Amino acid sequence: MHHPIAELITKADSAITHEDVDTLMSIYADDAVLVIKPGMNAVGKAKINKAFIAIAAYFEHSLNVTQAGMEVLESGDTALVLAKTIVKAANQPEIERKATYVFKHFARQGWLCVIDNSHGHDLLEPSA
Amino acid sequence: MHHPIAELITKADSAITHEDVDTLMSIYADDAVLVIKPGMNAVGKAKINKAFIAIAAYFEHSLNVTQAGMEVLESGDTALVLAKTIVKAANQPEIERKATYVFKHFARQGWLCVIDNSHGHDLLEPSA
Repeated sequence: MHHPIAELITKADSAITHEDVDTLMSIYADDAVLVIKPGMNAVGKAKINKAFIAIAAYFEHSLNVTQAGMEVLESGDTALVLAKTIVKAANQPEIERKATYVFKHFARQGWLCVIDNSHGHDLLEPSA
Repeated sequence: MHHPIAELITKADSAITHEDVDTLMSIYADDAVLVIKPGMNAVGKAKINKAFIAIAAYFEHSLNVTQAGMEVLESGDTALVLAKTIVKAANQPEIERKATYVFKHFARQGWLCVIDNSHGHDLLEPSA
């Protein structure tokens, strides 16, 4: 998949591994929403930035995120990404998530992530 | 869930059951994308309209769509809906789909569906 959004997601995955928060934040829109875990969202870049620092610590600075498959559905300035996201860390068993990401195309900045929900439909589970 | 988008989806489900294509089409943006099945998309209202007529015939005019659960994630003028969609028809076993819908807020028309993917991550399956 050579969609420009796929390249952004690869860039984000690499930034997560290297704890390069500035590069990571450059992929998000100002009013983006990140689902930290079902029932807990970070809204806006400042809170997403803070969340990523906490997430890196939670995974003992060993977090590795890759995509095992991806489809992009585009309509005008909006795109939905369905991805199989593999989350690895030294202190956790490997997890495969059915992630859903929404990107929006901005005139100046190009595609930016507006909704980052790596937990997919887990949001609907009773434990959430 | 009393989100205005939840009301639109209920309206769409009812319109599908009653084969009220005009009401159904009023919920879509002009350049909306409907995933008919994995690998086959209808793009734009004219093609979506045609697809719904074919879908109604395929299910022998007995199609019944309801949502067994729904979460809406909103960011500015964009919203992602994660839903458990129950599809019933006289000529098929009941199916539960993990649907993903994207809505966009328009100044004049309010929220409209821009991406309708009731098949969720099935798009990533090898058979797709």
